[in-house]
Amino acid sequence: MFHNIDTCLEKYIPQEELSHVQRILYGKKLQKLELPATCISNKDNVEVKGFKFDSLTEELREKRIVRVGVIQHQIVLPTTAPLVEQRNAIYDKVGKIISLAAEANVNVLCLQEAWPMPFVFCTREKFPWCEFAESVEDGPTTMFLKDFCKQYNMVIVSPILERDEHEVIWNTAVVIDNFGKVIGKHRKNHIPRVGDFNESTYYMEGNTGHPVFETAFGRIAINICYGRHHPLNWLMFGLNGAEIVFNPSATIDGLSETLWGIEARTAAVANSYFSCAINRVGTEIFPTEFTSGDGKPAHQDFGHFYGSSYITAPDGSRTPGLSRTSDGLLISEIDLNLCRQVKDHWGFQMTRRLDLYADSLAKIVNTD
Amino acid sequence: MFHNIDTCLEKYIPQEELSHVQRILYGKKLQKLELPATCISNKDNVEVKGFKFDSLTEELREKRIVRVGVIQHQIVLPTTAPLVEQRNAIYDKVGKIISLAAEANVNVLCLQEAWPMPFVFCTREKFPWCEFAESVEDGPTTMFLKDFCKQYNMVIVSPILERDEHEVIWNTAVVIDNFGKVIGKHRKNHIPRVGDFNESTYYMEGNTGHPVFETAFGRIAINICYGRHHPLNWLMFGLNGAEIVFNPSATIDGLSETLWGIEARTAAVANSYFSCAINRVGTEIFPTEFTSGDGKPAHQDFGHFYGSSYITAPDGSRTPGLSRTSDGLLISEIDLNLCRQVKDHWGFQMTRRLDLYADSLAKIVNTD
Repeated sequence: MFHNIDTCLEKYIPQEELSHVQRILYGKKLQKLELPATCISNKDNVEVKGFKFDSLTEELREKRIVRVGVIQHQIVLPTTAPLVEQRNAIYDKVGKIISLAAEANVNVLCLQEAWPMPFVFCTREKFPWCEFAESVEDGPTTMFLKDFCKQYNMVIVSPILERDEHEVIWNTAVVIDNFGKVIGKHRKNHIPRVGDFNESTYYMEGNTGHPVFETAFGRIAINICYGRHHPLNWLMFGLNGAEIVFNPSATIDGLSETLWGIEARTAAVANSYFSCAINRVGTEIFPTEFTSGDGKPAHQDFGHFYGSSYITAPDGSRTPGLSRTSDGLLISEIDLNLCRQVKDHWGFQMTRRLDLYADSLAKIVNTD
Repeated sequence: MFHNIDTCLEKYIPQEELSHVQRILYGKKLQKLELPATCISNKDNVEVKGFKFDSLTEELREKRIVRVGVIQHQIVLPTTAPLVEQRNAIYDKVGKIISLAAEANVNVLCLQEAWPMPFVFCTREKFPWCEFAESVEDGPTTMFLKDFCKQYNMVIVSPILERDEHEVIWNTAVVIDNFGKVIGKHRKNHIPRVGDFNESTYYMEGNTGHPVFETAFGRIAINICYGRHHPLNWLMFGLNGAEIVFNPSATIDGLSETLWGIEARTAAVANSYFSCAINRVGTEIFPTEFTSGDGKPAHQDFGHFYGSSYITAPDGSRTPGLSRTSDGLLISEIDLNLCRQVKDHWGFQMTRRLDLYADSLAKIVNTD
């Protein structure tokens, strides 16, 4: 199994040429963050990496330094285990990683899509998997995370399978603030119908628009998974004022890996905000076989979730990715002021001609 | 000077790992095209590369195979030479490269932004540079190219500095069909105000919308230079039916190089068409010094135009780039049917929710 493109480049390419390759592929060189010993001990096989993005020192505004964290993790128990045991085992593992994030002074943390469960939608089976759907306000996952938020003074974005009061199921990110209060939710705007991503069998397109959440550590938004293929989705979060947009995802190597490094990164540049691309990791195997609509025989595994989570600044510079194969925590120290600095430099917000496009889109929609 | 990232990776990384790196960075492996001997002789220091993109064989549609070409070139004479000599020297050189393209059976060819002149806008001097502006219909550049189009049965996209009948100057791409007829033009939609790109000193935002030109070799459109930073610009060409979108550009290494590989490529994926990113190459030096608004002393050079032109398919697979330092011709054999095949697979056109965004943009614009 190929572990990581970044370490591969570092291993083989001589320093002088490597600096060109890295500059072209990843932009401005980032400093590594100094992390506490517990973070870098690699106990429990959790890879922890930390980087610092540069910004200008302004005269009229204080820097607004924030530490952002993202976690990618494999499920723990086989998908044949009792559901509550599966979920508790994930809680245990991720709880430990959240504590590592706290030791590294992370302020805002985002977990992967549908984090407390396997990514079951390949099966098209409603039972038992729909049982994982839970309430935003007082479901087990929200209750589990609230204490961490309070204890660690940390905002946590928790992407879950939501069941609302009408028994409608949604793919939802819950935002819990640093006092343990649910301050809002966002429901996935764009639902795939590709490969084994049979999510439209379970839930519909989100009805929450493009909310941006004002937190103690910046204005944040969530573009869930397949929404990263839609530039308009990224755009609206930016227009609504986001400074950090998380993209909690679950995607596999045969399908999307060559797009992974470019879509969230292009969005950060186009919209002058930080983007955080988070992918699930590992290979999940299900109890009964299923077909993939690709002419191949039935099988029980959902391909390899390739991890590779990364963070991009509005100037296009990005961190290396986490591993393709193991659990990880990626931390970045950022200055939220960089968003405006990049806008003032590149001027994309000024040259965007939104009125032209509002007109053009209205015409297209009306013609249809 | 660092010549090319792709040859650097090939030089140092062992084959097995290289195949992972290339798959992740560039997608599906492309076949090399067999090219005529004259093309690969590297006579006149023109690097010629050719690749073939895969597609499915459909039952109900014939393949629509087209060869697309893009040319990047340095200016020839110093910017102190008489203007007509500067322009003729470029005509001579590019004429030869067009003939190479014809030998390789190129059907649709695009040249770089403002191709028959140095990229003078860093100087902010109106004289003598505005003299390069010329008529779309019967200016010297259109007249020069018409014969090639007829002789070689080739559509050529010719980005020039346009002077219209009211003496207004525009940054314009002229489309000449394979009978030598001007079938239309597109004026650059988004004008930069960044670094030495003082183009807003010379011309305004284009007023031609997002035209798509029906040619004998597919439906083509042109997103000129800085327009590549605007996802809505890419989107509208796609909504209007483009199968190939050219991005003739002029951009330098200190400013944009880390964005170069991701923006046109992300656009090809998001809009399910082929995109062709074309950059000028070389360092241009001007007669009188100018400052760059960056606190540094006055100087006479406009940084290094880093070439690196490349072509991306709608599935995200892309060619290697041309050199960062020399003239080049990049050819790709494509099947236009791949656009629909990728749409049917990924479903971005279906899941796009344009009505939602038309509404949202209208609200934003009206609030402003």
